[in-house]
Amino acid sequence: MSSLVSFGKCCSVLVTGASRGIGLQMVDSLAAGGGFSPGKIIATTRNPATAQKLQELANKHPNIHIITLDVVSQESIERCAEEVGQLLQDEGLNCLINNAGINVVADLHSVTADKMMENFHTNAVAPLMITKAFLPLLKRAASRGEAGDSGSMSIQRAAVINVSSLLGSVELNWGEGANNIKWYPYRTSKSALNMVSRCMAKDLEPDGILCMAIHPGWVRTDMGGSEGLLSPEESVSSILSVIGGLSEKDHGSFLNFTGEALPW
Amino acid sequence: MSSLVSFGKCCSVLVTGASRGIGLQMVDSLAAGGGFSPGKIIATTRNPATAQKLQELANKHPNIHIITLDVVSQESIERCAEEVGQLLQDEGLNCLINNAGINVVADLHSVTADKMMENFHTNAVAPLMITKAFLPLLKRAASRGEAGDSGSMSIQRAAVINVSSLLGSVELNWGEGANNIKWYPYRTSKSALNMVSRCMAKDLEPDGILCMAIHPGWVRTDMGGSEGLLSPEESVSSILSVIGGLSEKDHGSFLNFTGEALPW
Ligand SMILES: NC(=O)c1ccc[n+]([C@@H]2O[C@H](COP(=O)([O-])OP(=O)(O)OC[C@H]3O[C@@H](n4cnc5c(N)ncnc54)[C@H](OP(=O)(O)O)[C@@H]3O)[C@@H](O)[C@H]2O)c1
Ligand SMILES: NC(=O)c1ccc[n+]([C@@H]2O[C@H](COP(=O)([O-])OP(=O)(O)OC[C@H]3O[C@@H](n4cnc5c(N)ncnc54)[C@H](OP(=O)(O)O)[C@@H]3O)[C@@H](O)[C@H]2O)c1
Repeated sequence: MSSLVSFGKCCSVLVTGASRGIGLQMVDSLAAGGGFSPGKIIATTRNPATAQKLQELANKHPNIHIITLDVVSQESIERCAEEVGQLLQDEGLNCLINNAGINVVADLHSVTADKMMENFHTNAVAPLMITKAFLPLLKRAASRGEAGDSGSMSIQRAAVINVSSLLGSVELNWGEGANNIKWYPYRTSKSALNMVSRCMAKDLEPDGILCMAIHPGWVRTDMGGSEGLLSPEESVSSILSVIGGLSEKDHGSFLNFTGEALPW
Repeated sequence: MSSLVSFGKCCSVLVTGASRGIGLQMVDSLAAGGGFSPGKIIATTRNPATAQKLQELANKHPNIHIITLDVVSQESIERCAEEVGQLLQDEGLNCLINNAGINVVADLHSVTADKMMENFHTNAVAPLMITKAFLPLLKRAASRGEAGDSGSMSIQRAAVINVSSLLGSVELNWGEGANNIKWYPYRTSKSALNMVSRCMAKDLEPDGILCMAIHPGWVRTDMGGSEGLLSPEESVSSILSVIGGLSEKDHGSFLNFTGEALPW
């Protein structure tokens, strides 16, 4: 039973886009012992030198490891996976959080092909290419977890969490009200991410790697703006509690930060 | 009442990707008097010189107008819209069918960022950029239709039809069986197209332009392969009957070729 307990905890989490906003808050909350308190927190950012708040956190918490990752560069993704592999060795990676994202604001009038492609690359393609690169490490963690919990899925074993958005729901993109936001590149990129997430869920299932998409709520960050309904702390505390409790039944799902299922 | 009747029919249809497959069959069936028999059929193809079957059809039916359109080239889109404008003048365009599409086959192992971007550009971005370019012509047709049918929507007035796919349904991408097709670029591009379609439906509504997405079935074309369940004739005859009967209630929908609603 003692090996069950030692394998049964989440040893490592990687967060992309950890320089600010929701990603930075995830690193902060995890390091402070909120959520599922992983042993190693890998905070990636495309420019560590300018990520001051992240540097301050890492100075306080020695279990935070800052690694460079520009999510739209394949070279950067591969270099990052290499470095993380050296750091985690046989443990593997328990939880990959694809959080980095952009909002290339454009309505029907101002949208261009380039704007669509740029948002799609960062928000939908990058999480796919990053997950591919980290697959060996996720598989390693998943196979170690197997002994302890007879193959069921959870972040104690291995999981890929894609930070999506309610605005990626095609179903909910109808009618009036707050949902009447006409951001073609962003909405399209997030519905594409939902499909990527669902495709990956099917492919990762045989290895026991959980995969799902989560909406963080409307959060007061640079992207969400000052009118957002949630502080980063509130959103992340809720997200981490959902992620910590994920099980087989949530595999391939699209959940709100409250844990409720959202329509595609 | 006589003006109601003359405005009440579909005067013009434009089909993209009309060189072969479903697009070519649409032109063929429409010219042969199947479906809603438009006055002018604008068949676009990226290379008219090599589109022999289309040329043969145009030789038989003088109401088929072949115009060059490479859907991923903004310059080509604008030139095409210009030519079509000269052809249709004050009539405007009643029905735009975004049919051109590609399938960049790749599973989790073989998928690359470039493959994702290429499929997304052709299948999701192009229909958006084409619709934008034809918007003045669609609006013209819609405003002429208004007098006749008190503002309700139909292809007699103006409509944008996006040829999507069942494989773009995130909801249906689960479980085993025939639906277990692991085409990351294609699936993602079609779920993105569904979001584009829904966004456009909201934006085109005030102008009385109907917008929806349709799945043509599994069709024996170069893309569908020889195992497909439907001949191009069967698929297109069914699609044209659905399109011909579209009304306000179908605005913003995702329909099967049989006319049934599909989940997003
Ligand atoms: N805020 C909301 O209300 C809300 C709602 C729904 C969903 N979301 C989603 O939540 C996630 C986080 O959003 P947020 O509100 O925290 O946004 P944010 O404050 O704008 O932060 C975005 C983060 O993503 C990073 N990033 C962007 N492009 C990158 C790239 N190419 N490589 C590496 N990192 C990159 C940024 O890094 P730099 O500092 O280097 O730019 C930054 O750390 C996004 O996926 C967003 O779509 C947010
Ligand atoms: N067949 C099926 O079972 C099936 C099922 C679901 C959905 N669909 C959808 O139905 C539509 C038609 O498919 P299909 O089976 O007829 O495919 P197809 O036989 O491969 O024909 C594709 C057509 O799209 C054109 N095209 C591709 N890229 C283009 C570009 N950049 N510019 C202009 N034209 C371009 C091709 O022109 P060229 O001749 O110049 O290459 C061709 O006319 C597609 O959107 C497809 O995704 C098909």
